[in-house]
Amino acid sequence: MNMIEKKYENIARFAEKGIPIVEKIGVRVLAISERSVELMVPLEGNANHYGVMYAGVIFTLADIAGGALFGASLDYRQYFPTLKEINLKFRRPVLSDLFVSVSLTGETVQRVNDELASAGKADYVMEMELKNATGEVTDRATVTFQARPTPPGLKIFPD
Amino acid sequence: MNMIEKKYENIARFAEKGIPIVEKIGVRVLAISERSVELMVPLEGNANHYGVMYAGVIFTLADIAGGALFGASLDYRQYFPTLKEINLKFRRPVLSDLFVSVSLTGETVQRVNDELASAGKADYVMEMELKNATGEVTDRATVTFQARPTPPGLKIFPD
Repeated sequence: MNMIEKKYENIARFAEKGIPIVEKIGVRVLAISERSVELMVPLEGNANHYGVMYAGVIFTLADIAGGALFGASLDYRQYFPTLKEINLKFRRPVLSDLFVSVSLTGETVQRVNDELASAGKADYVMEMELKNATGEVTDRATVTFQARPTPPGLKIFPD
Repeated sequence: MNMIEKKYENIARFAEKGIPIVEKIGVRVLAISERSVELMVPLEGNANHYGVMYAGVIFTLADIAGGALFGASLDYRQYFPTLKEINLKFRRPVLSDLFVSVSLTGETVQRVNDELASAGKADYVMEMELKNATGEVTDRATVTFQARPTPPGLKIFPD
């Protein structure tokens, strides 16, 4: 976590350790900056019965990348994200650690904040390329999140 | 595993224990018969940070249901399945154990076997409704598997 600004340390820690099964899988946040994140998941401990990364682990990397990107882009003290829909295309077997970099444009964040203010919810879509250790795209994910205001009294994220 | 015919016991055991992270999640096979399976995954140990089943666990239930259905429908000594594409729509938060029943028609299995014989591979699609403990549909999955002949010397499934 050496490319993470201090203001995003909580988000990174939460992405890695906030959900017990995700912590067991070992998702790691490599970098967070404004509207941009990079994450990885290790092959070790996550292979299937013939040595290839298990598909559920690939899913988890895409989902948690979306969660971390939410924290890097929107006000997580006021809003929270839910995963609305995901489409995953598995192109090649993953035989190494797996990586993803994903970002949102300033225009998208502005549109989401405008819709949150006017409609009380906002959907946004992230297209992700998941890459192996040599940079080949092994999987493609289309991930739709919905942001909503956090209900009063519900504490979803750490301070 | 009390609704499982003896001929499918290997498949059930493999679905539950064949992939380490799936065993940790605790997917269970409730029933297998010809071209039909029923599986569940417990909420306990699989909740996210605010008590709702983690999406990666929901994914895993759909994927492993597909794997078990392969074993209940096709010759797993000759062929093996890969997950080609999945689409998951998350409709309601899952606050209980989660269940899925899925089957293939005899016509689909015949078509897959014919294509395997003629083309050496065959895709097939499973539409799944995932239901909570009170029978409400919480999630919908469209899961595309590809069956292929097992390469000589590669042992994917137990005898």
